[in-house]
Amino acid sequence: MFFQPSRISFDLPDWLEDFSKNYVSNPDLNKRMDFVIAASKRNVEQNTGGPFAAAVFEVNTGKLISLGVNLVTTQGMSILHAEIVALAIAQRKLGTYDLGKESAIPHELITSTEPCGMCLGAIPWSGVRHVATAARDEDARAVGFDEGAKPEDWIQSLTSRGVKVSTNIERESACSVLQRYIKNNGSIYNPEVS
Amino acid sequence: MFFQPSRISFDLPDWLEDFSKNYVSNPDLNKRMDFVIAASKRNVEQNTGGPFAAAVFEVNTGKLISLGVNLVTTQGMSILHAEIVALAIAQRKLGTYDLGKESAIPHELITSTEPCGMCLGAIPWSGVRHVATAARDEDARAVGFDEGAKPEDWIQSLTSRGVKVSTNIERESACSVLQRYIKNNGSIYNPEVS
Repeated sequence: MFFQPSRISFDLPDWLEDFSKNYVSNPDLNKRMDFVIAASKRNVEQNTGGPFAAAVFEVNTGKLISLGVNLVTTQGMSILHAEIVALAIAQRKLGTYDLGKESAIPHELITSTEPCGMCLGAIPWSGVRHVATAARDEDARAVGFDEGAKPEDWIQSLTSRGVKVSTNIERESACSVLQRYIKNNGSIYNPEVS
Repeated sequence: MFFQPSRISFDLPDWLEDFSKNYVSNPDLNKRMDFVIAASKRNVEQNTGGPFAAAVFEVNTGKLISLGVNLVTTQGMSILHAEIVALAIAQRKLGTYDLGKESAIPHELITSTEPCGMCLGAIPWSGVRHVATAARDEDARAVGFDEGAKPEDWIQSLTSRGVKVSTNIERESACSVLQRYIKNNGSIYNPEVS
């Protein structure tokens, strides 16, 4: 007899809420990125997932809406990249699938590494108006992660849909977290390819 | 004080479990697609989301592992495309983030419309070995849905990662569901673009 669960859920790491409470709203983009990169580092230290974090903020005030980290291995779901987690939490919290609707305050997604093909595709559907990234695709690839197939000009694929993009924000700091993960023999969770 | 939920969940429609019980394992790909398209039609009739369904099966036996439908508007999360839902359920059910690991029976994703950029990106991470699609990107666009930016040769982006692709399976049938959705004034839930 066929059966599948009627509710699907995933849990955030225990450390995440206290960690988030230390954030003070900051209009400086680099400071917001520092916070996100620190979360990616904590995720490695706590052994709660891959070396990636992402967060949704209000663009104008820097107010934190949601913080996500990579949970692929620990929650057993391949979709749970940090960006997907941050967007899902923000939409649950604000009660809308469109963070960019006309009545809403503009929101942004800040992520410690450039988005993979899946997360890139998720960004326009989320309604965020700005994306900021630290480590580059090639930095993730250099330590063994597959960023997936992306449109040739992935930045343009966002700007053409009304999403501004800022790259290379605190790149070195994010790279050091990727390096640390590899030194600790962190799992590279790419699926096996036959 | 910052707060975010520590558990994120989404619920499947009530009708879905009974609907799935009517499926009999079938090694004929077209029959499996018929079942998935019927689910997309039911999702429209029941007003539980967009006109899209997707399911994970065992490739060799046609055994159903999970059935997902589009839940963007009803569950308030932009990531909840049918493919993402089906993959998340299958991974929860089988207890792994990699449906293609060496010890596993090969799995496939059958979806009523070609995947958007996000879902395309999610496929290689899921571990499925085969993807079958019915309606084309242009069919979805013709009724107002944005399929997003995809690599120029999206099929090759999958085959190069060990995922076979079958397109145009029961395309007309899937298109009729898209048309019906529009006739019923179904919501086109693309985010607003400023």
